Amino acid sequence: MFLRVLMIGSGGVGDAAARIASERDFFERWVVADYDVTRAERTVAAVVGRRAGEGRFVSAQVDASSAEAVTQLALEHSATHVFNAVDPKFNMSIFDGARAAGADYLDMAMSLSQRHPERPYEEVGVMLGDEQFAVADEWEAEGRLALVGIGVEPGLSDVFARYAADHLFEQIDELGTRDGANLVVHDDDGNEVFAPSFSMWTTIEECLNPPVVWEKGRGWFTTAPFSEPEVFDFPEGIGPVECVNVEHEEVLLMPRWVDARRVTFKYGLGDEFIGILKVLNTLGLDRTSPITVKGVEVSPRDVVAAALPDPATIGPRMTGKTCAGLYVTGTGKDGRPRRTYLYHVVDNAETMAGYDAQCVVWQTAVNPVVALELLARGTWKGAGVLGPEAFDAVPFLDLLAAAKPEGYGSPWGIDER
Amino acid sequence: MFLRVLMIGSGGVGDAAARIASERDFFERWVVADYDVTRAERTVAAVVGRRAGEGRFVSAQVDASSAEAVTQLALEHSATHVFNAVDPKFNMSIFDGARAAGADYLDMAMSLSQRHPERPYEEVGVMLGDEQFAVADEWEAEGRLALVGIGVEPGLSDVFARYAADHLFEQIDELGTRDGANLVVHDDDGNEVFAPSFSMWTTIEECLNPPVVWEKGRGWFTTAPFSEPEVFDFPEGIGPVECVNVEHEEVLLMPRWVDARRVTFKYGLGDEFIGILKVLNTLGLDRTSPITVKGVEVSPRDVVAAALPDPATIGPRMTGKTCAGLYVTGTGKDGRPRRTYLYHVVDNAETMAGYDAQCVVWQTAVNPVVALELLARGTWKGAGVLGPEAFDAVPFLDLLAAAKPEGYGSPWGIDER
Repeated sequence: MFLRVLMIGSGGVGDAAARIASERDFFERWVVADYDVTRAERTVAAVVGRRAGEGRFVSAQVDASSAEAVTQLALEHSATHVFNAVDPKFNMSIFDGARAAGADYLDMAMSLSQRHPERPYEEVGVMLGDEQFAVADEWEAEGRLALVGIGVEPGLSDVFARYAADHLFEQIDELGTRDGANLVVHDDDGNEVFAPSFSMWTTIEECLNPPVVWEKGRGWFTTAPFSEPEVFDFPEGIGPVECVNVEHEEVLLMPRWVDARRVTFKYGLGDEFIGILKVLNTLGLDRTSPITVKGVEVSPRDVVAAALPDPATIGPRMTGKTCAGLYVTGTGKDGRPRRTYLYHVVDNAETMAGYDAQCVVWQTAVNPVVALELLARGTWKGAGVLGPEAFDAVPFLDLLAAAKPEGYGSPWGIDER
Repeated sequence: MFLRVLMIGSGGVGDAAARIASERDFFERWVVADYDVTRAERTVAAVVGRRAGEGRFVSAQVDASSAEAVTQLALEHSATHVFNAVDPKFNMSIFDGARAAGADYLDMAMSLSQRHPERPYEEVGVMLGDEQFAVADEWEAEGRLALVGIGVEPGLSDVFARYAADHLFEQIDELGTRDGANLVVHDDDGNEVFAPSFSMWTTIEECLNPPVVWEKGRGWFTTAPFSEPEVFDFPEGIGPVECVNVEHEEVLLMPRWVDARRVTFKYGLGDEFIGILKVLNTLGLDRTSPITVKGVEVSPRDVVAAALPDPATIGPRMTGKTCAGLYVTGTGKDGRPRRTYLYHVVDNAETMAGYDAQCVVWQTAVNPVVALELLARGTWKGAGVLGPEAFDAVPFLDLLAAAKPEGYGSPWGIDER
């Protein structure tokens, strides 16, 4: 089966996904749709320039906040898969729009949470993905697949969880996603500047929301932001980084399919970034609801994001590596205690040279393309609202790591501790 | 002579100035003008409610960015004095508009600076007040007075400088304005919240601009922000606060009229506020030029200010005292070394009870009203662009401190160290 993909969003991740996909043969049509059609056109021009005779990519304009617009565009292009590559605030309209068009759906972050009204730092309210899982039965009954959280984190981290459960561990104490980097951005004069490598809107959302933790027998619960600080030693020269609990999809996904005693997500924010997020919260600049400023209405969080460099543009001024991975503790298949970090490191110099994409964006983008290829081959198949850990991890990890042109040439590692 | 005052701006300071003035008899007309006429009307209603038969206050709408609009309104009301009570970014239009109307002028902050293009943290560029002093000769030739910087700081601090030179010191080593407070703001649930007691726009301006210092033989020069940290012990229970150099008018005013070896201004920002200002700078949120956010144009600094509580509204939820003062070191009239802190402390509880105004705003507002009364009496007179230290300090300090109804009932203190 050759897929017909409608990709919504050609920001950093969408653009990189199109560039990665252009090297593969599993699809016959890839529609690059964006609210700003000039961005979509730029992405299409870039991928056409990468490969002689490339005619599979077309651009389109779309309002991602309108399920009807998504449905109409999917039907127009006979899309088999709608691939959501925009901020998660648009998840539900794209998710609903894909279903109405009879297309399968993929995203890299799940529907947004709402904190518990009385006890936000102890109990969960509406959880990440709740709105999507609420209609899982309908998706399954219709034979349609919504593969949610298939970026790098969530995504590859969840694949690692399934791999650890199937092949490395007899019993798992903790599935602990740990994310860290040693990325530095410089300005034109060579001075180090603050420039987040990922969407600032999303970073604020996940870091200032109450972090969620799962424990067997207790279920999901929340803590205060930046809880349980831990210095984690990342591989391949990145070294120790201070990590803290944040709200992340892995904690909502992994317990549904993988047996463990505890599931956590800690992000290597580092001291400076934690300080910045605390100040934004103190000043009320993390808020998403509009305020009136000299007669115009703006969301403070949108202003914070707009004042910073676009993460998609900082690649040329960035150096360093980023690491996504899963630290698993428990009892190995041999019955002895085991502590294993499964990880994927990407060097910014390599993704810039190969794809003109900065490493965090590229690392997010490669995973849904691998998943789409497995779905095209029929290696992965399913119906309902499923996380990456619902599928066999081995073909995914093999295809990701295999050298080009068979695979994606992006190896992952295992570090026994 | 009974004055006819056109006050531009009825934010926190303008509103408090009108309330303070309503107890005095030196004027026959006080026009409260604001871009938002409902704010002006609210102030007029408040002062009319304070005194039976009060008919001297009227409201008006004005665009402070238009010199022509200021001139027209001043002529319409036969204003003898235009009192500028808005953000200093509007200084030049009000200053020029007053002169064109043949009125005298008062402000509480001087025209804005521009940093040195190549060496911002070593050399001055355009200095605070430069644009105003550039036309001092014309004001003097026309017999008109622009009394600049007559709030509390600058203002009362400059009066203290003149007093120290005339009555306390034979020779002055340093005129060091030192400002600190122990103010705390609570939310409705009693939790401490971050809520600056003065215009955030202006606080960012003065704290992130390169601080200016003056030294005899060297003149004015700049340093990096937050330089020369010093823990200063404030009187009346406030205690020690960390103070750092900031850009402030006193450093530009005092050397023009008072003999000293060094002139500095240090602000008791405290650690948290310094950290917040550094983050705003890191994120580019201190910038005043507009950026595009989801199709609308806004200045990031305006957004920061709008996201915080209006300083004029936090009085009821605030406790503590604020202190403005001048630390003078040198040789006393008796030829012996002397270190004297001249200061003015205001308790928020008192200004709220007496004027429904928070203390920092009230402390700023009282000084121009005292000055206007001295000008009305003819005790203070002059022509040109003059700072408060160009006038005899004694009648000002006496009128400020004297009990009501003769004076303003707000004593100042001397602390020998």
